[in-house]
Amino acid sequence: MNDKQKKPQKLRARLPRGFVDRSAGDIRAVNEMVEKIRKVYEHYGFDPVETPLFEYTDALGKFLPDADRPNEGVFSLQDDDEQWMSLRYDLTAPLARHVAENFNEIQLPYRTYRAGYVFRNEKPGPGRFRQFMQFDADTVGAPGVQADAEMCMMMADTLEALGIQRGDYVIRVNNRKVLDGVLEAIGLGGEDKVGQRLNVLRAIDKMDKFGPDGVSLLLGPGRKDESGDFTKGAGLDPDQIAKILFFVGIKDYADSARELAELVAGTSKGGEGVEELNFIGGLVASAGYQSDRIKIDPSVVRGLEYYTGPVYEAELLFDVTNEKGEKVVFGSVGGGGRYDGLVSRFMGQPVPATGFSIGVSRLMTALKNLGKLGQNEVLEPVLVTVMDGDVEAMGRYQRMTQELRTAGIRAEMYQGNWKKFGNQLKYADRRGCPIAIIQGGDERAEGVVQIKDLIEGKRLSGEIEDNIAWREARVAQETVPVSDLVAKVREILDAQAEDRKRADRP
Amino acid sequence: MNDKQKKPQKLRARLPRGFVDRSAGDIRAVNEMVEKIRKVYEHYGFDPVETPLFEYTDALGKFLPDADRPNEGVFSLQDDDEQWMSLRYDLTAPLARHVAENFNEIQLPYRTYRAGYVFRNEKPGPGRFRQFMQFDADTVGAPGVQADAEMCMMMADTLEALGIQRGDYVIRVNNRKVLDGVLEAIGLGGEDKVGQRLNVLRAIDKMDKFGPDGVSLLLGPGRKDESGDFTKGAGLDPDQIAKILFFVGIKDYADSARELAELVAGTSKGGEGVEELNFIGGLVASAGYQSDRIKIDPSVVRGLEYYTGPVYEAELLFDVTNEKGEKVVFGSVGGGGRYDGLVSRFMGQPVPATGFSIGVSRLMTALKNLGKLGQNEVLEPVLVTVMDGDVEAMGRYQRMTQELRTAGIRAEMYQGNWKKFGNQLKYADRRGCPIAIIQGGDERAEGVVQIKDLIEGKRLSGEIEDNIAWREARVAQETVPVSDLVAKVREILDAQAEDRKRADRP
Repeated sequence: MNDKQKKPQKLRARLPRGFVDRSAGDIRAVNEMVEKIRKVYEHYGFDPVETPLFEYTDALGKFLPDADRPNEGVFSLQDDDEQWMSLRYDLTAPLARHVAENFNEIQLPYRTYRAGYVFRNEKPGPGRFRQFMQFDADTVGAPGVQADAEMCMMMADTLEALGIQRGDYVIRVNNRKVLDGVLEAIGLGGEDKVGQRLNVLRAIDKMDKFGPDGVSLLLGPGRKDESGDFTKGAGLDPDQIAKILFFVGIKDYADSARELAELVAGTSKGGEGVEELNFIGGLVASAGYQSDRIKIDPSVVRGLEYYTGPVYEAELLFDVTNEKGEKVVFGSVGGGGRYDGLVSRFMGQPVPATGFSIGVSRLMTALKNLGKLGQNEVLEPVLVTVMDGDVEAMGRYQRMTQELRTAGIRAEMYQGNWKKFGNQLKYADRRGCPIAIIQGGDERAEGVVQIKDLIEGKRLSGEIEDNIAWREARVAQETVPVSDLVAKVREILDAQAEDRKRADRP
Repeated sequence: MNDKQKKPQKLRARLPRGFVDRSAGDIRAVNEMVEKIRKVYEHYGFDPVETPLFEYTDALGKFLPDADRPNEGVFSLQDDDEQWMSLRYDLTAPLARHVAENFNEIQLPYRTYRAGYVFRNEKPGPGRFRQFMQFDADTVGAPGVQADAEMCMMMADTLEALGIQRGDYVIRVNNRKVLDGVLEAIGLGGEDKVGQRLNVLRAIDKMDKFGPDGVSLLLGPGRKDESGDFTKGAGLDPDQIAKILFFVGIKDYADSARELAELVAGTSKGGEGVEELNFIGGLVASAGYQSDRIKIDPSVVRGLEYYTGPVYEAELLFDVTNEKGEKVVFGSVGGGGRYDGLVSRFMGQPVPATGFSIGVSRLMTALKNLGKLGQNEVLEPVLVTVMDGDVEAMGRYQRMTQELRTAGIRAEMYQGNWKKFGNQLKYADRRGCPIAIIQGGDERAEGVVQIKDLIEGKRLSGEIEDNIAWREARVAQETVPVSDLVAKVREILDAQAEDRKRADRP
């Protein structure tokens, strides 16, 4: 062992890459959002069920039988009994395990929802974390695409319940069967072409990023990026590529429906897929959701491999500025699809299911951009300052604090080193406390308290030019009998609320 | 490789030991509880902050430098860069890391709270899980024991806000410094006796389980349990044991205060600890919390090693029946203490802190026992049944469902195989749907819907003796014009609510 290794490392406070702490503002925003989403789902007849963060690796369906370690992408470890456990990478695979495990007790169709953290053991990047929250809803035991249609309507209703205007979002719907039909029609059907089909799916999924020209290269000979790195292509010929690009390029489904039907004619599932798309389109329109809200769009692919039928995606249409300063459409905030095979993996029988997932952090970012969250901000507490440290005095300050709390006013007694009084007011100022309560020996003797209006004080200080004057400026304050404490504090808080309301008016 | 190994295993739906799924009832109960707790903490001036589930193992403070694997008790794995990461085992160690990492941005004293899952890699047992939820509150940068006193008051207020009556709980307070003083007084001071002191702490912590006689054996020669297993003792002599038992046996602190002060006289911190206890006792009494709510009790130890001053525990005093059918006091639902050294581990300066943790599941069990949760149970949805599967008909059923939802009524369209109508009513019955809506071809032609009151139906069926009669019994139902759907459903729901209210009356 060399010297370098022996040197004791100083304990450093830091987080593993791709993990972050969440601020009070974000937590409150997410809680507010989750509550609104929950209400919509409950209204739709969904009930919560939650699974733990760990599952057996094989139950998650990412286990590679020929490797002695589970594959990348998930966080895995071995239990005492040598079995591999993984942290869930989504909320769908664990739900499938839950349903299979409790199949005899569960009433099908089973409508459930859940919010929770999922983990991806991937290279983190900007806005890409290794722990993030998803909010899922699923209907298990629902064979018909009316269940998929309902999911799309529920996504639309959810976005509107969160304050997103009609026209600022769209739910796009496609069907894996149609895509499979197109692939079969161009000669990519059959078990032996699984790998090539997967490459095609991945290429299509890059449409947003590279456009039709880039995707065309990925479908054909391959693509060299700006840095010179080469991505191998799927090796399709120009005719095959043209048919795929026609399909994913369909903008108006009704206009192209006939051409599409012809393209997939004779394939094993393509026609069925088109019928399902038509059914969903008709059903949502009949239920009052026109194509400005739910739209058939063959470019939707969805990354996960377990989808077997309709897939759908919620996209926000308004512009935001990205890291490079470019205006871009906000894009996807969630999606899902039908996964008829996922529960069946555990069972001797088919168990059809469909569901979707909302990316909670991403949607929160969107709502913040739109100013739809955190308007009812929590007021900082009234600060009861401390001027004397014996039991009797502290008991008195504590009683004042409790009196305010009992009256429904957020309040705290200063818990730092009370001997430095300046620090107490500095704390109140930095924290944004609306009011400070002060009672020194003189006030105590007279049975009064000083009440400082710190917001008014700030306003006054805004009129003062330099720092020294600011510090010396007398902030707004009043001295009242102890018995008037609560009433006076409430009066000032009300006045401040009125000020804020006036300031918000145009 | 032998044949046994090669045999493919059927994929089995099961969870790793010590992990459980959470039911709708439990999730709603916890949400209700967490919301009430949150309100109290916010009122006390605390703000939320959350950390991710992973931390670097060394930051959690359980890292053993001489082992190439972290010690047991935590779930750990190595990141790509070979660094060990662990799932948090509590919410305090991550908070200490958070404060140290963001020390320059944080205003001290820093009042925060958070609820979240923690993980213990231990042998699971009845009611002992490897993932469970804690709800913590902490004040960092608060050097005085008035902050500990406030924590005790907040715990008391929290329990009362949850509906636990005064007299059904007590917050018990002790001080590690006093305990250290006692140990020093009997010759167990000094760095070289750390191990022995730890053994003594563990023995005292078994008081509830083994009583004074058992603890006495654990402090002395050792104890053999019923199965014959021998636990090595701390090896103290009878005089040492007597002094410890005197200390932890103190029932009335005021009565024994003088004797205790004498016992710890001359020790480095014992006197300071007694003073702190007296200060806390005086302060909470002065703030209106008498010893029926917050009580100095030297038998409180708390398992975690990082406490440095006051420790406190919330105990529920009512009886419950345990697995063996015995009546036992419900016991601890949470606790905490002062941990002045935990943040400092990362810093060049002392950062005093105190906080406590509530065991969410345990407290929920207690509240369920008391009937304090889930009274506002969520009503199951109204079921719109499906009698025809074409787009037009489904659109109609979907519109009815949406109409009910828009009117604020929880509703769902049946999403199973609609062709078996009997299954739809069976589903409604098993799920507990209050109402089923039916519209077949005839009703459609007449512009009416059938509305079945399934609760009334059940009540009627209660008067019927056997199963066959039950199935044949006509449930309460009405036929109304489609335009009256919402009004009629609401009328029936109101009548059912009135029935429930009457049934609840004594």
